[in-house]
Amino acid sequence: MADPWDRAYDFAVKVARRAGEEIRKACESEIKVMIKSSAVDLVTKTDERVEKIIISMLKEEFGANTYNFIGEESVANGKPCILTDKPTWIIDPVDGTTNFVHGFPFVAVSIAFAVKKQLEFGVVYSCLEDKMYKARKGKGAFCDNDRLQVSDVKDINKSLIISEHGTDRSPEKVTKIFSTMQRILRIPVHGLRGSGTAATNMCLVACGAVEAFFEIGIHCWDIAAGAVIVTEAGGMLLDVDGGPFDLMSRRMVSANNNTIAQRIIKEIEIFPVERDDAEISKK
Amino acid sequence: MADPWDRAYDFAVKVARRAGEEIRKACESEIKVMIKSSAVDLVTKTDERVEKIIISMLKEEFGANTYNFIGEESVANGKPCILTDKPTWIIDPVDGTTNFVHGFPFVAVSIAFAVKKQLEFGVVYSCLEDKMYKARKGKGAFCDNDRLQVSDVKDINKSLIISEHGTDRSPEKVTKIFSTMQRILRIPVHGLRGSGTAATNMCLVACGAVEAFFEIGIHCWDIAAGAVIVTEAGGMLLDVDGGPFDLMSRRMVSANNNTIAQRIIKEIEIFPVERDDAEISKK
Repeated sequence: MADPWDRAYDFAVKVARRAGEEIRKACESEIKVMIKSSAVDLVTKTDERVEKIIISMLKEEFGANTYNFIGEESVANGKPCILTDKPTWIIDPVDGTTNFVHGFPFVAVSIAFAVKKQLEFGVVYSCLEDKMYKARKGKGAFCDNDRLQVSDVKDINKSLIISEHGTDRSPEKVTKIFSTMQRILRIPVHGLRGSGTAATNMCLVACGAVEAFFEIGIHCWDIAAGAVIVTEAGGMLLDVDGGPFDLMSRRMVSANNNTIAQRIIKEIEIFPVERDDAEISKK
Repeated sequence: MADPWDRAYDFAVKVARRAGEEIRKACESEIKVMIKSSAVDLVTKTDERVEKIIISMLKEEFGANTYNFIGEESVANGKPCILTDKPTWIIDPVDGTTNFVHGFPFVAVSIAFAVKKQLEFGVVYSCLEDKMYKARKGKGAFCDNDRLQVSDVKDINKSLIISEHGTDRSPEKVTKIFSTMQRILRIPVHGLRGSGTAATNMCLVACGAVEAFFEIGIHCWDIAAGAVIVTEAGGMLLDVDGGPFDLMSRRMVSANNNTIAQRIIKEIEIFPVERDDAEISKK
């Protein structure tokens, strides 16, 4: 029997590539000619334009009302961020907007697809590197044509860990983030890295380039596609308190194996963030 | 009149590419088939092998005794690290050894050339990305065929800063490094990044992808080539205390302009490191 979502998966890859071309063009041409210090406006415009391209391509292909959409820009503009049983596209048009403004080489398009609240596939196109990461549930993860496999390192002292400082600059959060990073470095681990995009960080876990990525404060659209890619590459996802991973909780540890994940979790200083679907409980 | 070091500069690019191919091969083939957790031995072997390739290519081309050499591996094996007036190659065969072990995508070959203690040119080959950065004093900096220009951002609040945690895990140093990073993030800046290689970080300053890179603890071979590249791209170098840049001091701020450099310097908590040429003062 043909996979019911095969066509959607293949089409998502096309859409991600088309969106990534748009971003690359903006990054290479528009940012080059403009004064960089006024590039922030360009981000919002590109973000909105690319999300519209993605959603309109999907609606044209599959019909306007077949699927739900959760997109970073749509949610910013007041659309609900609630995952229902209905097949749903979860979209981040430009993951790594700060990188985009600066031309720092990690900027990604992230497109995931969930049915009955379960992630079916994910596509992350790292458009400045021109690397297409993708994974279909039960069928493996790939970067272009190469099958991905997480690292086999179990010894935390031999691990490389990736995380982010985030964009929230409230003193309490910054202090906890730095304290956590310092505790992890002192385990010790081989090193800490930060690419500036959650989607790419998850692909780096899937590739085996880092053993783990964790963050508090990410959104479901940053990590939904990466979640499938990490899992299909043999990795795992947990909540930062060691409980089960919850896509809408804005907290996540993704790792090559449980040994590494649990050791990282011991060092994470948790701070509160509002869930992506907080509006449900408010009603 | 022909530039007296033109031939050396052109040849350095060839050597860097040859060395980078060797590293890429090791990274792609050998690391893939081995158990990653035993990859540390491979680093030392690759480091030594690649430095031998570089030095023997240079000696074959220019004669065995024409130039001095300062190379990371040679110094590790007891050779002196003293910059004299004699024309000198300053070589880091594999910058980003932790990245190399993990297959994290920033690994660079760094080759610089100094005459009368002044840097004449520098070549950084980011071999996993396949990007050749190079600069000749007075003749501009390039990535492949594109001329490089630092960012025009003068407002620190719109800057992206890159630095490293380093490999020293002594509590005093780690505390100061994290404290500095936290102070810089809280200025606030757009963000902090870390690629894991000083040579690549400097090229990211030269490209305009970040406004500044600073580090205490780097060695002359990590930054000599990058120093020419940043300067020729319109950027500048200073000591972390605001004084003049000193290649052998193991401390450096490289930035797009003086405004950004001075603002960063205000936040840096300095800790002592032994100079690369410390043996001079010991005599």
